Amino acid sequence: MHILVLGAAGMVGRKLTERLLRDGRLGNREISRMTLHDVVAPTKPADAAMPITVVTSDFADPGTAAPLVAHRPDVIFHLAAIVSGEAELDFDKGYRINLDGTRMLFDAIRLIGGGYKPRVVFTSSIAVFGAPFPDAIGDEFFHTPLLSYGTQKAIDELLLADYSRRGFMDGIGIRLPTVCIRPGLPNKAASGFFSNILREPLAGKEAVLPVSEDVRHWHASPRSAVGFLIHAATMDSAAAGARRNLTMPGLSATVGEQIAALKRVAGDKVAARIKREPDPFIMGIVDGWPRNFEARRARQLGFTTAEQTFDDIIRIHIEDELGGKFVA
Amino acid sequence: MHILVLGAAGMVGRKLTERLLRDGRLGNREISRMTLHDVVAPTKPADAAMPITVVTSDFADPGTAAPLVAHRPDVIFHLAAIVSGEAELDFDKGYRINLDGTRMLFDAIRLIGGGYKPRVVFTSSIAVFGAPFPDAIGDEFFHTPLLSYGTQKAIDELLLADYSRRGFMDGIGIRLPTVCIRPGLPNKAASGFFSNILREPLAGKEAVLPVSEDVRHWHASPRSAVGFLIHAATMDSAAAGARRNLTMPGLSATVGEQIAALKRVAGDKVAARIKREPDPFIMGIVDGWPRNFEARRARQLGFTTAEQTFDDIIRIHIEDELGGKFVA
Repeated sequence: MHILVLGAAGMVGRKLTERLLRDGRLGNREISRMTLHDVVAPTKPADAAMPITVVTSDFADPGTAAPLVAHRPDVIFHLAAIVSGEAELDFDKGYRINLDGTRMLFDAIRLIGGGYKPRVVFTSSIAVFGAPFPDAIGDEFFHTPLLSYGTQKAIDELLLADYSRRGFMDGIGIRLPTVCIRPGLPNKAASGFFSNILREPLAGKEAVLPVSEDVRHWHASPRSAVGFLIHAATMDSAAAGARRNLTMPGLSATVGEQIAALKRVAGDKVAARIKREPDPFIMGIVDGWPRNFEARRARQLGFTTAEQTFDDIIRIHIEDELGGKFVA
Repeated sequence: MHILVLGAAGMVGRKLTERLLRDGRLGNREISRMTLHDVVAPTKPADAAMPITVVTSDFADPGTAAPLVAHRPDVIFHLAAIVSGEAELDFDKGYRINLDGTRMLFDAIRLIGGGYKPRVVFTSSIAVFGAPFPDAIGDEFFHTPLLSYGTQKAIDELLLADYSRRGFMDGIGIRLPTVCIRPGLPNKAASGFFSNILREPLAGKEAVLPVSEDVRHWHASPRSAVGFLIHAATMDSAAAGARRNLTMPGLSATVGEQIAALKRVAGDKVAARIKREPDPFIMGIVDGWPRNFEARRARQLGFTTAEQTFDDIIRIHIEDELGGKFVA
C-alpha cells in the first residue's frame, strides 16, 4: 500500500514516519511506498525498505494538492497545520493553511473520482472546545472554539464528515490531547510550556512556566499520539458511523501534578530548573482550554494510550528521546 | 440607521422587509435607509417611507460582497442560501453559495476595518444537528449534520463566532425552526411538505404527504421567525457571550398532530385534501432531522414565539396570508 503523510516534517509526522518504517506495514498490509510532504523539506529516511518520495510545497497553494493525491495513496495522514499561537496572530495565514489547505486537499481527493476513496486520517484538536466546560467534556459536547485555530479545526472536522458521508473519502478525525513531552525545540504553540517545563529540566536546562500550577490540561505522549494515528488508519471506520471525529483518550493533570511527577521520576534538583514567569497572553489563551474529557467513544472504538500516569509520560520521554538517561 | 437584507426576495426576507417598513424603526432607532439584495430581483416596496435600494447579484461571486457593505450598513440580515434539497443534489453549488458566499460577506465586512462592526443576523438551521438525538436537543448538544446544507450552516456558525470574537463584526446566528406555514409556492426544500399539507388544503387544493404521520418536527410561524430576526438585531449581544449561535424556540409536533390541528381549525373536509404518497428520498432526509429542542438559552435571551399551539400556527396563516378566510 501507498501512504502519504502531509506535515511529515513536524514532530508527530516524524514520529509517525519512523514507526511506519519500523513496522513495514500498516494493519495487515505491507507498505510498498511512502510519500512525505511538508512545506519545509522532510528528512528522507536513509535506511528505508521501500521507495520514499519527498515533496516540498505549500499545500495551501491552489493546484498543489492534486499532484499529491494523483498517485492515489491508499492512506493519507493529514497532519499539516500552523499552530494555535500563529493562527491567532496571523488571521489570514491561519485560515489559508488550516481551512483552505484542508479543503483543497479534500477536494483534490473528491475530484479524482472513479471509486477512489482513501482513508484520510486528520489530526484535529481539543481546541474545537471552548470554555465554560463541564468537569469532564463528554463525546456529545458542542464545539464553541475560542481561538481561530480551534475554529479552523472544527470546520475541517465538518468537511471531513460531509465528504466522507458523500463517499468521496473515508475520513477519521482525531482530536489529539496536547502531546507531552514534545521532543526537540519549542515551537510557537501556546501549549508549548506543558512540555518545556519537563523536557528542558531533564536536559539540564532552565524552563519558563508562564501559568499557575493549578492549570489543568489533557495530555498524551508522542508514543500514544502515533498509536492513535495508526489505529485511526486501520480501524473499521463504519463502526464510527456518521460521527467520524473523535476525542482521543488522554491523561488529565494539573501543572502541579506534572511537576510532582517530574520530582518523583527525576528528583527535586531537576524540578528546581522550572522558573515561574506568568505571561498574561499565554494565560489568556490557556484559560479557554479544556481540562478533562470522558473520551468513551474513542476507547470503545479501540483507541488506547501507552501511559497510565504522568510518571509514565516522563519515563516514555526518557526512554524514547534520551536513551534512558537525563541530567540529574 | 441603514439596514441591508441579503436574501430579501425569499419568503422570510419579504416578511422581514414588510415588518421593518411597517415599524419604520428597529429597536429604538429610526430606519433611514434600506438595501434589499437577492440573486433574483426583490420587489421594491411601493409605499416606503425611506429610500430603498434594490440590488440583484450573486453574492457568492468574488467581488460582489464588498460593494454591498461599502456603505456600512448598521445591521445586516444575512438570509441568503440555497435550500437543503438543492445543496444535497448540487454539491458544488451548495458549498459555493452557502459556505463561500457567507465567508466572502464576512471578509468584506472585516476588510472595511476602521472600527466598522455591524450587527450581522445570520439565519442558520436546525440541520446543523444530525441523528441520533436525545428526546429534546439541549443547547450544548454537538453538531453532526447529515446533509451538506447542515454542514455549510454549521461552518458559517463557526465563522460568525470567530469573526465576532475577533471584533470584525457583531454576529448573532439563529437556528430557525422549520417555518410553517410557508406562504406561496412550494420550494425545493425537503421540508416543504410540512407546510404544503396545511397551506394547499386551506386553499382548496390537494397536497402530498411524503412521510408517515408519526414524523415529529420542530416548527415556528413566519410571524415568529420575523420576531426572532428583529430580536437578534436589537438584543444585547454581549449577553450571548462567545456562544453566539442559538437554537430558537418553537413547537414540536408530529405530522399527525399537525393534521389534527388542521381538522380542529378548518374541519375534516379540508384535512381530507391531504394525499399520502410516501417518498423514500424525502423520508431518508427527514429521518436524520431533529424532532424537539429545549431552546432554554434563546428564551433566557428574550426570544419568544407568537404561537402556543399548532392550532395557533394555522390561525396565524389564515390571518396573515388568507385575510381571515379559507376554502372549507
